Amino acid sequence: MTGKRGLTQEYAARILGNESPQHAAERLRPDLQALPHVPDGSAQISRERARALWDEIGGDPALREILLERAPDELRLYQGNIENAIGVLRMPIGLAGPLRVNGFAAKGDYPIPLATTEAALVASYHRGCRLLTAVGGCSALVLSESVNRAPGFVFETAAEACLFIVWALGQFEEFQRLAATSTAYGQLVDVACLVEGNHVYLNFEFTTGDASGQNMVTLATQVICDAIVERSPVRPKRHYVESNLSGDKKANARSFTTARGKKVTAEAHIPAELIAKHLRSTPQEMADCWRMSAIGGVLSGTLGIHGHFANGLAALYLATGQDAACVAESAVGVTRFEVTEDGGLYASVTLPGIMVGTVGGGTGLPTQRACLELMGLSGTGKARALAEVCAGLLLAGELSIIAALSAGHFARAHRKLARGRGTKTAETWPLAADSPP
Amino acid sequence: MTGKRGLTQEYAARILGNESPQHAAERLRPDLQALPHVPDGSAQISRERARALWDEIGGDPALREILLERAPDELRLYQGNIENAIGVLRMPIGLAGPLRVNGFAAKGDYPIPLATTEAALVASYHRGCRLLTAVGGCSALVLSESVNRAPGFVFETAAEACLFIVWALGQFEEFQRLAATSTAYGQLVDVACLVEGNHVYLNFEFTTGDASGQNMVTLATQVICDAIVERSPVRPKRHYVESNLSGDKKANARSFTTARGKKVTAEAHIPAELIAKHLRSTPQEMADCWRMSAIGGVLSGTLGIHGHFANGLAALYLATGQDAACVAESAVGVTRFEVTEDGGLYASVTLPGIMVGTVGGGTGLPTQRACLELMGLSGTGKARALAEVCAGLLLAGELSIIAALSAGHFARAHRKLARGRGTKTAETWPLAADSPP
Amino acid sequence: MTGKRGLTQEYAARILGNESPQHAAERLRPDLQALPHVPDGSAQISRERARALWDEIGGDPALREILLERAPDELRLYQGNIENAIGVLRMPIGLAGPLRVNGFAAKGDYPIPLATTEAALVASYHRGCRLLTAVGGCSALVLSESVNRAPGFVFETAAEACLFIVWALGQFEEFQRLAATSTAYGQLVDVACLVEGNHVYLNFEFTTGDASGQNMVTLATQVICDAIVERSPVRPKRHYVESNLSGDKKANARSFTTARGKKVTAEAHIPAELIAKHLRSTPQEMADCWRMSAIGGVLSGTLGIHGHFANGLAALYLATGQDAACVAESAVGVTRFEVTEDGGLYASVTLPGIMVGTVGGGTGLPTQRACLELMGLSGTGKARALAEVCAGLLLAGELSIIAALSAGHFARAHRKLARGRGTKTAETWPLAADSPP
Amino acid sequence: MTGKRGLTQEYAARILGNESPQHAAERLRPDLQALPHVPDGSAQISRERARALWDEIGGDPALREILLERAPDELRLYQGNIENAIGVLRMPIGLAGPLRVNGFAAKGDYPIPLATTEAALVASYHRGCRLLTAVGGCSALVLSESVNRAPGFVFETAAEACLFIVWALGQFEEFQRLAATSTAYGQLVDVACLVEGNHVYLNFEFTTGDASGQNMVTLATQVICDAIVERSPVRPKRHYVESNLSGDKKANARSFTTARGKKVTAEAHIPAELIAKHLRSTPQEMADCWRMSAIGGVLSGTLGIHGHFANGLAALYLATGQDAACVAESAVGVTRFEVTEDGGLYASVTLPGIMVGTVGGGTGLPTQRACLELMGLSGTGKARALAEVCAGLLLAGELSIIAALSAGHFARAHRKLARGRGTKTAETWPLAADSPP
Repeated sequence: MTGKRGLTQEYAARILGNESPQHAAERLRPDLQALPHVPDGSAQISRERARALWDEIGGDPALREILLERAPDELRLYQGNIENAIGVLRMPIGLAGPLRVNGFAAKGDYPIPLATTEAALVASYHRGCRLLTAVGGCSALVLSESVNRAPGFVFETAAEACLFIVWALGQFEEFQRLAATSTAYGQLVDVACLVEGNHVYLNFEFTTGDASGQNMVTLATQVICDAIVERSPVRPKRHYVESNLSGDKKANARSFTTARGKKVTAEAHIPAELIAKHLRSTPQEMADCWRMSAIGGVLSGTLGIHGHFANGLAALYLATGQDAACVAESAVGVTRFEVTEDGGLYASVTLPGIMVGTVGGGTGLPTQRACLELMGLSGTGKARALAEVCAGLLLAGELSIIAALSAGHFARAHRKLARGRGTKTAETWPLAADSPP
Repeated sequence: MTGKRGLTQEYAARILGNESPQHAAERLRPDLQALPHVPDGSAQISRERARALWDEIGGDPALREILLERAPDELRLYQGNIENAIGVLRMPIGLAGPLRVNGFAAKGDYPIPLATTEAALVASYHRGCRLLTAVGGCSALVLSESVNRAPGFVFETAAEACLFIVWALGQFEEFQRLAATSTAYGQLVDVACLVEGNHVYLNFEFTTGDASGQNMVTLATQVICDAIVERSPVRPKRHYVESNLSGDKKANARSFTTARGKKVTAEAHIPAELIAKHLRSTPQEMADCWRMSAIGGVLSGTLGIHGHFANGLAALYLATGQDAACVAESAVGVTRFEVTEDGGLYASVTLPGIMVGTVGGGTGLPTQRACLELMGLSGTGKARALAEVCAGLLLAGELSIIAALSAGHFARAHRKLARGRGTKTAETWPLAADSPP
Repeated sequence: MTGKRGLTQEYAARILGNESPQHAAERLRPDLQALPHVPDGSAQISRERARALWDEIGGDPALREILLERAPDELRLYQGNIENAIGVLRMPIGLAGPLRVNGFAAKGDYPIPLATTEAALVASYHRGCRLLTAVGGCSALVLSESVNRAPGFVFETAAEACLFIVWALGQFEEFQRLAATSTAYGQLVDVACLVEGNHVYLNFEFTTGDASGQNMVTLATQVICDAIVERSPVRPKRHYVESNLSGDKKANARSFTTARGKKVTAEAHIPAELIAKHLRSTPQEMADCWRMSAIGGVLSGTLGIHGHFANGLAALYLATGQDAACVAESAVGVTRFEVTEDGGLYASVTLPGIMVGTVGGGTGLPTQRACLELMGLSGTGKARALAEVCAGLLLAGELSIIAALSAGHFARAHRKLARGRGTKTAETWPLAADSPP
Repeated sequence: MTGKRGLTQEYAARILGNESPQHAAERLRPDLQALPHVPDGSAQISRERARALWDEIGGDPALREILLERAPDELRLYQGNIENAIGVLRMPIGLAGPLRVNGFAAKGDYPIPLATTEAALVASYHRGCRLLTAVGGCSALVLSESVNRAPGFVFETAAEACLFIVWALGQFEEFQRLAATSTAYGQLVDVACLVEGNHVYLNFEFTTGDASGQNMVTLATQVICDAIVERSPVRPKRHYVESNLSGDKKANARSFTTARGKKVTAEAHIPAELIAKHLRSTPQEMADCWRMSAIGGVLSGTLGIHGHFANGLAALYLATGQDAACVAESAVGVTRFEVTEDGGLYASVTLPGIMVGTVGGGTGLPTQRACLELMGLSGTGKARALAEVCAGLLLAGELSIIAALSAGHFARAHRKLARGRGTKTAETWPLAADSPP
């Protein structure tokens, strides 16, 4: 059974056990017997509604106790952030940093709360932050910011599609006016168009103040679409407020060269001595490891080149009330390490489209807001600074993981921390073999 | 200022305000003045250590109250899942379903806990679940399962690289034996190799029982690598336990055709009447909308074709203690809608590599375990069933969003729920205009 | 030997035969013994120089006869299109069409010369052209046109990179003036910038008249770069006239949403009867086949969705003197088939960036120019029309291949034509089994 | 008109001139008036048939003279390689090398014929070959070889799809036997399967002797598919001999990690002095330029990392009778440059799937065969050697272009050669400014 078919056959045998394939396949059939009661949904959020929902589904009281009763009584505060609430999830928050960030918007020393359940994650980012702070902080800069929404319009012919575009581009100021009726914070700044046969994609680009802004741009685009359908001299056969071109919640190559969220870069020049002290590696070893990792990523068909942006992003997004699903689209970008002429390390990360805000979404919930306040980044006027801190954090994480891989400490750090035996400082964690617990 | 340069100049002017570019650039310089104290890291997790950490960073007592003191005293339970703990994050959990799943491993009606802070997410998945349950449930099937780790080896020449491979492939049974010394659950099932110049990537493929298994395969691979370096007749100049080829935590094209986590598909045949009743759309409208969305995604350079896998995945991963960072790699796949010969809708989702487990990682933490238990999917023997429920949930979500887009309800549902005014059943939510609150 | 390692081991055994790996590896070593004479290069093209080169390398007279002496004596006409000329390649040209194209620039019936050595290619495109002509022609439209060149600049810091950009964007009119000094046909129309750490990519976008224009924009960009290096207040450490961001000669996702060559779409609405008559298939069968093919392409990680653009493109590029290497970047795009409400087929192709010209490059060589003249598309004012005909041709090819696959004729047509037994009309070729030779 | 809409509006205005959009759109309508005569197709290739075809389409006698009459009378030799032949295309062939290749199959000094009409291409590859030969030749190695064909099968449900797979994998030896009935050279070596909802993709992998093999595997797969449809216990609703998963004629990410054609790598270690002498650059400058180019390519969403594989590939494919359309899929891979510890340059190229053969297709045509014979690579037993020479050539090209870019000679070389004024040796071409013409 050489070859891939052998593995597939082994898998099938393992799954089936003694059952025949036909018998197993029977289990997959739809079954209309004894359909369960599906509760009505509810956007009213309160402890009472949650209890009623538990009653309705007949949930185990012990679980209800853990998920609902044991939590602080703050469920009503989640109104507008969830539906059908039945309780509250708890995740630990670990601290990385303080990280010194020299940004255009961020400027100072930021303690960084990270929510995760994965061993070694906070430790790894923490030692990266410690290094960056030791060199006087990283530089970080938001390079552009806007959020897009891309409605789709279907016409009879490509000719009609082109007529539509010529008309629509001439309506830009009117579209701006319409968008402004639905939002006080968002502003339409550009529209691009793409024709595929008789399909037209318009890509509306907005600034969204300090909100991440996905909902804001959806509502504004709906207002524009309503007007388009009513007024267009070439009536679309069908239209959709979003055509899936925007990149919303999906890793996409387009983000590198067009606008989606905040483009941000962070960098540092790090002397060899500090690499040795904090990361137990050398600039040359790290640049070599980066090179092979860069190509490894390319060979696997990733978008961009990086190590583990998703780890830090997910943990920071969760702690600060960002949309966790946006990790899918935000965890894309480029990490670059070089040995400099003076023998040090140049390191940078660039993220083409992170979706962060300091108002709206989950940013106002009790613990999430507290995390933002701990960083001094809650409320209006702070979103760009949050993006810069985010980039700095990811730079710290890339430095730490590449150092661990290049120095052979990666597996050891995970073994030690995941098994709960790590006890000393973050910087000695990767040196499990030679440091006391 | 026609063209893209105009937008860039506008952005620069907006950011700079009255400041000169030179002056602004000064802010980005490293600054070694008054470096902050960076606490030693600690893997010891307890309320006392957390308090000490708050003292050390001088955190605001009001924030400490929210993040640490107000939470149930369970911090020590997180030992081994985090470091530098300073408190506990709270997120609401909403209920979707029960969803009937006719899987090979999953079989029954599953209430699905979703942790999110995004309005409309639970409502949207809930109405999809309601529909799928009404047709007797979706079919779902794990098609393969294994987790890979891809160490990298650097040689002087490609010739040495090839000699190494010939040797290494002959050691497979020995590698299996070595892997078994580090884990009782994981089993090495294959190794593939890829040569790029003088670089060799080995791709080790493991089964990992009911654990998601990333750490397990890292440790096993480290043991193998240690032996390789010691015994190989062609000594690598450098090696790394992971070369970034594995796809770990990054969306990648490779997952479609090679092994990474669990491949899973879910599908349903849905009569037009139920589409009309539950989603207020028609099979033809939905298939048309799917087609434009599929191409929209392709044009934006996404991997695969789908709508919003990340939303449901992130919410379910969080609720059940999966690694949230894995959303980046898991939220990739294919959704397909077709009008069937009898005028109904065929709908399927296929995910080439989701990373889920029912033991290990965050699955044993109090609320996460409670969520798994609510689904009846906690502990050994349940991982494949969890994967099948996960696929069913995402199918529900794809049905719901495409219906909302095709029927023009997408923006309205978000407006209503995000602003906290939605109150009735999930299925009427998207019909804000014509249903009473 | 289950699994992939088994296949690799089998391959190694097959290649090595009785040789040991070590012995085989020895063959790969550099060998400085008896290095061959490498002729000086020469851009002077003539029969005499070619003969001298044959003498210099000691080439077999029989081969010289075939490659050099037997060809018409026109070698000197290739001066400026090649170096070190030693002869002339001959490829057959087949005729597809005439194809009726209703374009904005192209309007009429175009016989299409295709240069290829692959059996069935011309036959397949020909029957597609026949069908499109029978419906009154396809519609075709160039949606935008410009060629980009993307120089790269390296700075010490990201801060310097940003200062540079602010300066450079302010020089746009000066850059336009500089570009105009190097070319009478090209015009600089926009510049965009992208920062990655301390790297700056500028993307200059030009119109290039009726030339494909790659060389034109290179020279213009060099003039701009020379001025930038001299005048910039922030001096780059290094710079390159092309940074590999432009997409030149490489399939790239970026082309869908930014400018590169000509964006063009072609479409047709085709009644079911004509599908039956010309392609022996039905709209439903073809739309079903398209859907599976679309997803198959996505699963394999292609850019866009299509069947075989490269076949028609390569053959037309060769016949008309386009740069054959540009097939790599041009053969990207989207094909879409739908059953229309009246039971017919809607079919379209969209190519985001084809590189075609009717002046410059190889378009003036004897046979290439003759092919352009056969189409009535030689010289100035014809490039957009050529692009529209090109899109129409590819639409014909997509219709033909999907029909052959959906009707099960694909393999039969290839067998018959490749084995030289096909003799009747193109439309019956795919029906090998039931039609006389 | 800031922003992208401005550029689009400018384009529309330029194209429309004084015409109204509505009027222009009218031109795109199908037009059934005076449909042209479309000749019957013909696979019979001869000068007489060609003349008849010219008569039939009423082609200009002057063009017929150039394309048909002036060519050597060898048209009948193209029988089985084209249909509807009307003449012969002529392209110049330039010589690069000889290139010394130390391969496993290739071993010696290879003069390399390149067919192109692009100035500077041959000169650039020639100087790269000169350098590689001067270091004793490059190493090159085919790492695996097989060609795949991926039929698609549509079932009612995913459950049926799985039943089908279990059955089909058990038929492997029978499939091998069936394949062998259609070809004496091809051999089925593996089959993999992929399920997407109720769709099954089987991926058949064949060795194909010394042929490129696409037709061979199509015919063999058709035989297998015919048997499958007849014998399968679960009958597919529809099936296609190719599902577009194979990657045929399209750049695809899948080729890196699965089989498609020949995987090949070439490499060299080059002392700094020879870089200086032949390329007028330094290892450090070249490694720096490579790094920025690598990231530039990644940012543009290319597959792999390289400079201009398509240039050399297309020219060599054409000269040696390979399928030019395969440039689209073959021109993908990884180039890597590093400064070595001794201050030299390590350079490698790796191509995951090139499609080359030395028998079949266009390899037997007069000039194409002559080119293969000039290299000593015509006929059976030579395909792997051709692949190794091909990789060596591309390595030469990557060295040359990166050197030109890093040293600022890129634009100058193109200007000089394209304008026909370059006259001296290849190695001085890039030094237009300081060397006499």
